[in-house]
Amino acid sequence: MPMIRVPVCLGDRAYDVMIGSGLLRAEEHWSDLPRASAAVLVTNVTVAPLYAAAVQTQLKNRFAKVHLVTLPDGEHHKTWQTLNLIFDQLLGHECDRKTVLVALGGGVIGDMTGFAAACYMRGVPFVQVPTTLLAQVDSSVGGKTAINHPLGKNMIGAFYQPLRVFCDVDTLQTLPPREVAAGLAEVIKYGPIADAAFLGWLEDHIDDLVALKPDALMHAVRRSCEIKAAVVAADEREGGLRAILNFGHTFGHAIEAGLGFGVWLHGEAVAAGMVMAADLSERLGLMPVGFQVRLSALLQRAGLPVLGPKLPVDEYMQHMRVDKKAEGGDIRFVLIDRIGSAVVRPAPEALVRQTLEACSA
Amino acid sequence: MPMIRVPVCLGDRAYDVMIGSGLLRAEEHWSDLPRASAAVLVTNVTVAPLYAAAVQTQLKNRFAKVHLVTLPDGEHHKTWQTLNLIFDQLLGHECDRKTVLVALGGGVIGDMTGFAAACYMRGVPFVQVPTTLLAQVDSSVGGKTAINHPLGKNMIGAFYQPLRVFCDVDTLQTLPPREVAAGLAEVIKYGPIADAAFLGWLEDHIDDLVALKPDALMHAVRRSCEIKAAVVAADEREGGLRAILNFGHTFGHAIEAGLGFGVWLHGEAVAAGMVMAADLSERLGLMPVGFQVRLSALLQRAGLPVLGPKLPVDEYMQHMRVDKKAEGGDIRFVLIDRIGSAVVRPAPEALVRQTLEACSA
Repeated sequence: MPMIRVPVCLGDRAYDVMIGSGLLRAEEHWSDLPRASAAVLVTNVTVAPLYAAAVQTQLKNRFAKVHLVTLPDGEHHKTWQTLNLIFDQLLGHECDRKTVLVALGGGVIGDMTGFAAACYMRGVPFVQVPTTLLAQVDSSVGGKTAINHPLGKNMIGAFYQPLRVFCDVDTLQTLPPREVAAGLAEVIKYGPIADAAFLGWLEDHIDDLVALKPDALMHAVRRSCEIKAAVVAADEREGGLRAILNFGHTFGHAIEAGLGFGVWLHGEAVAAGMVMAADLSERLGLMPVGFQVRLSALLQRAGLPVLGPKLPVDEYMQHMRVDKKAEGGDIRFVLIDRIGSAVVRPAPEALVRQTLEACSA
Repeated sequence: MPMIRVPVCLGDRAYDVMIGSGLLRAEEHWSDLPRASAAVLVTNVTVAPLYAAAVQTQLKNRFAKVHLVTLPDGEHHKTWQTLNLIFDQLLGHECDRKTVLVALGGGVIGDMTGFAAACYMRGVPFVQVPTTLLAQVDSSVGGKTAINHPLGKNMIGAFYQPLRVFCDVDTLQTLPPREVAAGLAEVIKYGPIADAAFLGWLEDHIDDLVALKPDALMHAVRRSCEIKAAVVAADEREGGLRAILNFGHTFGHAIEAGLGFGVWLHGEAVAAGMVMAADLSERLGLMPVGFQVRLSALLQRAGLPVLGPKLPVDEYMQHMRVDKKAEGGDIRFVLIDRIGSAVVRPAPEALVRQTLEACSA
């Protein structure tokens, strides 16, 4: 199976996303990591038994010392307390500022390890090995790292780019179906915001993706990373364009915050959030009626929820007002104005409330 | 009294350090801060009664909402827990990603506010108003922000540049003499590492500085900021040259860590650390005998300690090995090879131990 390389063009912070099958065992792609006396592999209790040994083998070829940090699993552990477990190990092992951190796991591990790398001694290099579909198509590109705060998701973090990302689609074979679906939500997102043809391809291949066929997975991961890389290269620090990647996320974050983080998977909340954003796009006259139904149908075939939970509308509104994309209390929504094109703008509160009523159950 | 502007040339992160008398009340220098709906003034219980009202007045001319966060005072509060008090307020007030953070106080307030600004929503703008001599000549230039970890000082942080720095030398009039001296340690540092003439000027004017004469203070702050700005512009992320600014700091950090943070002031530890580094420079044959005595004499006139505390030498060594400048367990020292010129290199452990024995009491 071919190896795909997607460059992320960010000047002196440029890096490559490698996508392939058997990557964790492909020594040639690990052998040119920068020299340092130590690497620290950060993973969680679920992923460690499956893939830690393979990655450790690669790292031991390159680094004199390889330390393993195994964190608890789950979004509710994406906290300062868990982050500190990484710092405790780094300092306990007297790791210096050239130490390479390696994140092996899903988005939570990637976000925390990346943020630890951004902060430890004001910045050490790090490598991402995302093992979930969501992490491969989303957090692997763009350098967003963060932890949660009791008052908001991803509120404390940094933009910090990895040295390299290894997306081995073989690791997706062990993923529970619910997590595959959650990842497909972010894959599907790239169609409406950036690529009408890719939305059509997804409608043709969604069953292959759900069945985890490697060639379909590789194409989906590749196209997702390419689109995200193009957006991020144009706007690394989310000054404007990059916000379109948050299609479905303003509503989705409110779902996650309203239910408590971890009840719904992030991708599930984004799926229902995209339906809401599609609904709002129609109510604003940006899209003809029918778009929301088309998007919902694809999401449903992927095994995703298309209606949000029945929370009080005021609660939805409140959670959206503290979203990072809000400015001066104005909630800014990512909306679709034609398939393959997104706009970011506020919306009349009355229409937003209609959407929340119509798209929750 | 004239107003001095020292530009810090860091490309799209360039900013100005304004140095003057009466700056806190000089409306024209505050009126062009970027637009945002809110500013958050972060200070501590000591500084708030002295200067918070003046800064709040300036900010209220510019921002619809001005929130005040008053933290406890002291190096031992430079922790994640205190940092979280800032995040709690930012999220509690629903501050968005354009919110301007303003640090009013010494290095601890500047470091914590800067790190909070670096991390809140992955980065919001911030302004520094350093009110101690140490902060005006050191942390105001270069964007180093951090908090301490139980296993090491400044271990968790970020490089993050302010929008602007206001150094009002009037605020130094309320500084306790011990803190004036601690600031003079960092001023004196710039002579040996970068400017022989400035070292001579300091020997001529140290009594004026100790007496807080404004014209002497303005020149000392200006020259310190100019030297630091030149070094930082050449090496923002401490890849090489910037390390010379840590003259005295490797030994100094070991003193602070060994005694427990906060027992000695940072500048006091740096003073004794510089004497140690001068002693080691002589032992290595980099400098003729006499340099250490000359430096010690000036530091003593500034009211600073010139001998470290009598800690076990092994303890010094251990603390230095986890210093951020160490690489693979090798301690790297900033040494002087001619007045106005520093080098960064390891040193034989036997000589380091001799220095520690000779320069502590």
